Amino acid sequence: MFRKAAIVGPGLIGGSMGMALRNRKLAETVVGIGRRRESLRRALDVGAVDECTMHVGEGVREADLVVLATPTAAFEAIMHEAAPQFRPEVILTDVASTKVRVIETISAALLERPDVAYIPTHPMAGSEQSGPLAAREDLFEGAVCIITPLTNTCPETRSTIRRMWEALGARTISMSPRAHDRLVARISHAPHLAAAALMAMVDDNEARLAGGGLRDTTRIASGSPDLWVDICRSNREQVRRALDEYVQVLQRMADALRDGDLGELKNMLHEAKRRRDRALADREQESS
Amino acid sequence: MFRKAAIVGPGLIGGSMGMALRNRKLAETVVGIGRRRESLRRALDVGAVDECTMHVGEGVREADLVVLATPTAAFEAIMHEAAPQFRPEVILTDVASTKVRVIETISAALLERPDVAYIPTHPMAGSEQSGPLAAREDLFEGAVCIITPLTNTCPETRSTIRRMWEALGARTISMSPRAHDRLVARISHAPHLAAAALMAMVDDNEARLAGGGLRDTTRIASGSPDLWVDICRSNREQVRRALDEYVQVLQRMADALRDGDLGELKNMLHEAKRRRDRALADREQESS
Repeated sequence: MFRKAAIVGPGLIGGSMGMALRNRKLAETVVGIGRRRESLRRALDVGAVDECTMHVGEGVREADLVVLATPTAAFEAIMHEAAPQFRPEVILTDVASTKVRVIETISAALLERPDVAYIPTHPMAGSEQSGPLAAREDLFEGAVCIITPLTNTCPETRSTIRRMWEALGARTISMSPRAHDRLVARISHAPHLAAAALMAMVDDNEARLAGGGLRDTTRIASGSPDLWVDICRSNREQVRRALDEYVQVLQRMADALRDGDLGELKNMLHEAKRRRDRALADREQESS
Repeated sequence: MFRKAAIVGPGLIGGSMGMALRNRKLAETVVGIGRRRESLRRALDVGAVDECTMHVGEGVREADLVVLATPTAAFEAIMHEAAPQFRPEVILTDVASTKVRVIETISAALLERPDVAYIPTHPMAGSEQSGPLAAREDLFEGAVCIITPLTNTCPETRSTIRRMWEALGARTISMSPRAHDRLVARISHAPHLAAAALMAMVDDNEARLAGGGLRDTTRIASGSPDLWVDICRSNREQVRRALDEYVQVLQRMADALRDGDLGELKNMLHEAKRRRDRALADREQESS
């Protein structure tokens, strides 16, 4: 599918892509590009890349696929180095968790390179771990990958990227960048802050006494704060809106408790359970 | 330890206690008491009890340990039937998730039976499942069991109940009923509503697209709504206070996003991660 894939930031997501691209023969060579020597060595050790470099321009020069898999805060600087060096007709993608601002940044950097085929994607996989040591070839098996094509993305590029993600095991869907950002604010970013807020509210003694319920509910709160601040910065407005909506639901619950309206509370719990059980059942059916 | 243990409500918690009391030779006989024939048959089938009955008075009559393991809403009616039938000096315990109101209800029913040694406990174990088919002998291994002795509980009773829970694998701690109810509102009841509110906020399509993060965060939202409404009713005031505090933390986050104060948000995420990672490490150390 590709002769040479360059992965900028071969950590959990980028490293897992590298492994799968290599092992599934989707790319002849995978080059890892990073800022820290140690991290690149780990990516080599775990088999996420064939070779690596700390020079963005050098790394992307011969690639026919370039994947941006660093935190979004680094995109501008990376694109500044990479843009002049891209091969003509290269496919450029990113795997960031937010899209509207990312697309602005990357599109601005490509003004002089209209020949670059940029197509943003977001594989919805991951864990509270990070770094190349957490990478797994099967990370994307059964995951959903959202593709947010731009108005000028040509059908061949869409098709290639779609087929690549499907070969990595993901189910792809397309939507607009704005619809994407609203969606992930509601199903991922606000839930992350909701989990962190539960831990922020208790003290160490209380936390130690908690059972499996709180432990699971707050699993994602053990994720990298830097990564999540990067995500929140990049999707600030939608995350704030989702949090506001979440607070409204919680206040309905608090009101029901204050008024002794346990029937209302019961309806909300029933509806939440129904929705969750159904979503799980749908997912199982889709992946079987 | 006991000649005959009677378990009113041999479901997930009660059934697991029955299994462990039997298999670990802590009780010679375990009798299950319930309202539904089918459920009692399952308790027999899985080995949670030796015998069973639908008559509370009959079931408790010869027991030297009686465990109330039904939803708290049933306690008043059960105690009405049971109180006149208890053996002298019987140890009575409950495993409810809330204590202040439960103790009021049970103490009121024991006014004529000052010889009954009532000692409330709360094993902090469970899952989103319920019923005798979910019961497991090792459910309490590594769990914390909170004992909330009453002012008149004699030392022998405290010691017996403490040793029983330790024999079931739990680590016991004591605190006042009020401190207990505040604690569990913060580490269990409010987190449950927080998880349910995340599911209540999204629609079915959004829920289907969610990844492992939301799935874990909302696991407890698949728990029994009836059970949780019972808990919330019984701990209304403390749950409402905990929800209010939770909303305040979320609003601090929303404010930080609105003001672009990502440093404040980062501090909160770091603190949440530190607390969670530390609580997990402490738990591992304690159970090793």
